[in-house]
Amino acid sequence: MGREKNAALIYSGGLDSTTMLYEYASVISLAINFSYGSNHNAEERRCARYHCEKLGIELIEIDLPFVKNHFESSLLSGAESVPDGEYSDENMSSTVVPFRNGIMLSVAAGVAESKGLKTIMMANHGGDHSIYPDCRPEFIEAMSKAIATGTYAGIQLEAPYTNLTKKDLALKGLKLGIDYSMTYSCYRGGIQPCGRCATCLEREKALSEAFKEMQLKNN
Amino acid sequence: MGREKNAALIYSGGLDSTTMLYEYASVISLAINFSYGSNHNAEERRCARYHCEKLGIELIEIDLPFVKNHFESSLLSGAESVPDGEYSDENMSSTVVPFRNGIMLSVAAGVAESKGLKTIMMANHGGDHSIYPDCRPEFIEAMSKAIATGTYAGIQLEAPYTNLTKKDLALKGLKLGIDYSMTYSCYRGGIQPCGRCATCLEREKALSEAFKEMQLKNN
Repeated sequence: MGREKNAALIYSGGLDSTTMLYEYASVISLAINFSYGSNHNAEERRCARYHCEKLGIELIEIDLPFVKNHFESSLLSGAESVPDGEYSDENMSSTVVPFRNGIMLSVAAGVAESKGLKTIMMANHGGDHSIYPDCRPEFIEAMSKAIATGTYAGIQLEAPYTNLTKKDLALKGLKLGIDYSMTYSCYRGGIQPCGRCATCLEREKALSEAFKEMQLKNN
Repeated sequence: MGREKNAALIYSGGLDSTTMLYEYASVISLAINFSYGSNHNAEERRCARYHCEKLGIELIEIDLPFVKNHFESSLLSGAESVPDGEYSDENMSSTVVPFRNGIMLSVAAGVAESKGLKTIMMANHGGDHSIYPDCRPEFIEAMSKAIATGTYAGIQLEAPYTNLTKKDLALKGLKLGIDYSMTYSCYRGGIQPCGRCATCLEREKALSEAFKEMQLKNN
């Protein structure tokens, strides 16, 4: 990616994409926050606004009401439908919003082409692979080609965290001084994260491992 | 494609996708009509409802309000913004809605996965290639791979008109006995088609050539 400031980031306000927002702030000119009517979108959006304002990056908020109307997912069905447990558990597949990344990337590609931007970015990482097919390298590669061939500007998709772990991201963020208390991930969507759903457990683990690694290096 | 009835068609209500609805009625179990707030969506939707009801195919109507809010296109800016003339004219690029097919295909993939369908279909054809990058074979091929890898069911994209002309489609439709007076294409969106925009001219030419060819064969 060049050093020009002409990238749009798909930005939820969670740990992963907030890390990308800070790491690539010099090339990101637009953040796009999507709400598909899930339990946690409102809290995420509050965090997204906070960081974009802090970094002086324009934020567009796009609602996708058709997802709630026509898609099946426990993310869309109220907090009590979200299962406890880790992503590796079989019951986590109920939290999938089908082809979510394909939809967000396509809309972002259209927005980017409309606004003369050259790149779109997404913060999928290696920990997502086991459960979400639209986070895996083969999807990213094919979607990248679809976006490049389907736009006049040959818009590029960059997903530089695809093969990193969430701990790698947390470590980047701690070094960058990101205030992760102002990021939100819990699938249940309460003002206080539940601490029991897969995304709470994964986040907690990544942050505590990253803290330990930082301390070991500093000692 | 198998003979099971498990495909979703992206269905505008225009000549191309109406032809596909009739030709593949035995495998299409769901039609998805999108409105992105363009001049002509309302008239198209009226036609889409007519044919789906006639064939007994379920129709879902999905609005994409973000397109009007964040995208640039003369299709979205009132009838007087649509230029006169043919698709080959340079001014026709103003009618492009950036990455429209990528967006509709992604949403359709999510809906199909939610509903247990195995295939999505689109009626892009060869005449679209010159102006719309997201109608060309290389886009279809890449998007097809993105959808197959990004969904659990490995949903297939079928676009069997990709290398046909609009006249080929009109000829199919006339043989199938489709009432094309109940399809709508005009980019200006009036109750009566304008007869001067690219889509009116292209439609008129395809239908008149197809009629001639039918008559020659019948004599």
